Amino acid sequence: MTKIPLKSRVMQKNDEIAGAIREKLKAQRIFCLNMIGSPGSGKTSLLETLFKLFDRKGTCAVIEGDVKTDNDRQRIEKAGVQAVQIETDGACHLNAAQVDKMLTGLALDGVKYLFIENVGNLICPAAYDLGENKRMIVISVAEGEDKPLKYPSAFMRADMVVITKIDLAEYVDVDIETLKNNALSINPKLDLFLTSVKTNTGIDSLMIFLKDSYGRYE
Amino acid sequence: MTKIPLKSRVMQKNDEIAGAIREKLKAQRIFCLNMIGSPGSGKTSLLETLFKLFDRKGTCAVIEGDVKTDNDRQRIEKAGVQAVQIETDGACHLNAAQVDKMLTGLALDGVKYLFIENVGNLICPAAYDLGENKRMIVISVAEGEDKPLKYPSAFMRADMVVITKIDLAEYVDVDIETLKNNALSINPKLDLFLTSVKTNTGIDSLMIFLKDSYGRYE
Repeated sequence: MTKIPLKSRVMQKNDEIAGAIREKLKAQRIFCLNMIGSPGSGKTSLLETLFKLFDRKGTCAVIEGDVKTDNDRQRIEKAGVQAVQIETDGACHLNAAQVDKMLTGLALDGVKYLFIENVGNLICPAAYDLGENKRMIVISVAEGEDKPLKYPSAFMRADMVVITKIDLAEYVDVDIETLKNNALSINPKLDLFLTSVKTNTGIDSLMIFLKDSYGRYE
Repeated sequence: MTKIPLKSRVMQKNDEIAGAIREKLKAQRIFCLNMIGSPGSGKTSLLETLFKLFDRKGTCAVIEGDVKTDNDRQRIEKAGVQAVQIETDGACHLNAAQVDKMLTGLALDGVKYLFIENVGNLICPAAYDLGENKRMIVISVAEGEDKPLKYPSAFMRADMVVITKIDLAEYVDVDIETLKNNALSINPKLDLFLTSVKTNTGIDSLMIFLKDSYGRYE
């Protein structure tokens, strides 16, 4: 037995479960986002800031993925939004079966937006469909301009890229236009957002995009 | 067949090759460091800055690992040091067989320090011995204080941690002491270095440590 059939059996099973999740969420009119980014790219901070703009926190729910700790679940709950935590205990990505199991732990009545914050890793999560409607790459300017070129798979399979911490650009000698263009050279269809939770930049635009996406989805 | 025996056969084979690399390098008096960190943690910049302190660039060599591009090999060569690139084409870590193969592409005569810059990922590379003498975690302050707690395996299996971009600490609201203490809570034996390539902080201390490590190794 070679490694490839084993891998594709695993992926096939994952994709089946992901498809079923997508159907289930569609029936409940829940729009799902899968957030992928490196450790410290600012995924949780972005959610905390975004949630301030929601009048009704009950329309949001979060599945948190981490190798260890439930720090992020606690942070999201402090922001007034329900969250469940998956601790992967070493695994480098979430899979659809884990997400499916976690859905039962959430009170989904009235929820419109389900955010899945994947494990901090720009490589492995890219291969796993979690049943999301949109896939969001979160990348901080502090990571440097060339990261889309170095980790193309994540950008190729994404729908949107949120560039975070743009207030740091001048301190880290990163040209945001170059970073943007590198992302678009990998995937010209990406929706791009420039944000800073510190200066509250770009969060409104992201919110409008989410509401608009929900409108079209419904 | 379950997944566990397959995985452990792969790991066993990797460890055997890593052991052979360590013997081979020891015979040539080459000290090897395996650098592990997230995308944009500053691994290549750290090497570029460190190499300025070497009078004889020929005493250093680098094996670069990336999912895609040979940007980093080019950067290292511009710094006057020989380098070879492994493009993993999707794989999330380097393995010992790849390193072993790359050793034949380097002119090792006169080399004392071999740096392996692993793929940008704080999770998967932690499991793979590459035949190194010391394993170095590179983490930027911009990644946040809690990362050692969230990605404990990498810190548990490391010998040293280089905290980079400390000049950014005030802009990202990160307390360096907390970050340090979180790393030490996972592994109290870690040698810790606080650095900034922008202000040239901590690079001298790191250099002294490397020379001292080499002295003991020889």
